[in-house]
Amino acid sequence: MSDATTPVAAHKDAIRAFAAARGWEPYHTPKNLVMALASEVGELCEVFRWLTPDESRAAPADPRLREAIADELADVANIVFLLSAHTGIDLSDAIRAKLVKNAVKYPPPAGPGGE
Amino acid sequence: MSDATTPVAAHKDAIRAFAAARGWEPYHTPKNLVMALASEVGELCEVFRWLTPDESRAAPADPRLREAIADELADVANIVFLLSAHTGIDLSDAIRAKLVKNAVKYPPPAGPGGE
Amino acid sequence: MSDATTPVAAHKDAIRAFAAARGWEPYHTPKNLVMALASEVGELCEVFRWLTPDESRAAPADPRLREAIADELADVANIVFLLSAHTGIDLSDAIRAKLVKNAVKYPPPAGPGGE
Amino acid sequence: MSDATTPVAAHKDAIRAFAAARGWEPYHTPKNLVMALASEVGELCEVFRWLTPDESRAAPADPRLREAIADELADVANIVFLLSAHTGIDLSDAIRAKLVKNAVKYPPPAGPGGE
Repeated sequence: MSDATTPVAAHKDAIRAFAAARGWEPYHTPKNLVMALASEVGELCEVFRWLTPDESRAAPADPRLREAIADELADVANIVFLLSAHTGIDLSDAIRAKLVKNAVKYPPPAGPGGE
Repeated sequence: MSDATTPVAAHKDAIRAFAAARGWEPYHTPKNLVMALASEVGELCEVFRWLTPDESRAAPADPRLREAIADELADVANIVFLLSAHTGIDLSDAIRAKLVKNAVKYPPPAGPGGE
Repeated sequence: MSDATTPVAAHKDAIRAFAAARGWEPYHTPKNLVMALASEVGELCEVFRWLTPDESRAAPADPRLREAIADELADVANIVFLLSAHTGIDLSDAIRAKLVKNAVKYPPPAGPGGE
Repeated sequence: MSDATTPVAAHKDAIRAFAAARGWEPYHTPKNLVMALASEVGELCEVFRWLTPDESRAAPADPRLREAIADELADVANIVFLLSAHTGIDLSDAIRAKLVKNAVKYPPPAGPGGE
């Protein structure tokens, strides 16, 4: 339940410090990070590519698959956090702004009362 | 500075509620979400594919590019949050576990004192 | 049935000429082309992300979906051809070399005689 | 120079026979193949993600990188060929149709004579 108490910024700070300690920051242009993101998402695709919908739903209950998914999801999330840090785009603000746009693009269906 | 105070779980709850209100949850198998993630990352790649390293660093200072990057980054982040919610994999736990593995795989360089 | 008679090199020549006529070649570094490939594959993912396995098999029979798939598949193929042209890696040679490696990695199952 | 003489269909036939001999065809829905494509493109992204434009241009001259690029490019091409085979979309026809659309969308610049 750690997501309940960890602010997004804590993850951004942790992954930046990790990269800085290894001298990786010169490589972390937004373009390179986006390409690294495509690489990590490719690893998630590798896990799921041949699974049926039901097998994909059951995958997190299999310990070996669960660990693979968790590892790749963490890699993807960390690059998202690095992109936010290096572009100076606050992720929470960007998400709220996009949700407003998406709520216009995809209005929720009318309720049973007809409104 | 909203990332400083927004816990990861708040984003997970918001995007799940958004999807549930639109009846999208039956489509959100882990496999489908991973494929949607590859689609959204493709849109980030579209923004950056022809930019030089310097142009990519300068992109967030251009208002039109900044909005495009923020929008796509938000879409990517929301799918990461949906994957976390639908797999039951706590993102913060997964990130910490992966950082431990990565610290072994990529040890930080020795300090100036030689240790 | 045009694939039966069109050599791979004809496609490579056509797409290079198309790009050269528009002054695009300076942008076509291998790195940029790979990123463009991820962008185009993302568009294919967009078409298929919410489909069931059966819907995905039926998609080419739907005229609108068939055109979308054909268009995106053509875009992907053209970037593969540009990558081959710009790296000087003959695609047919690379494919044959990789099939030999894959035949070792994934040996075909033994025949009905049991050997 | 093998691309000069190998028709596209020969590659489609070879990869289909390879997959059929291993009993893989039931997994090769268009959706699964697109997801496999995203996975293979991710491997190409992994090779190029941290390279500068110049390093990316020089990569094919490095024997180890050249082999890695050739292997991943072959994997990507083979999935494109499988997608063409399984959707019944002739790749050469699709490419020609898309080039016509793209020529309208991106007209070549006027020549030096002004026409």
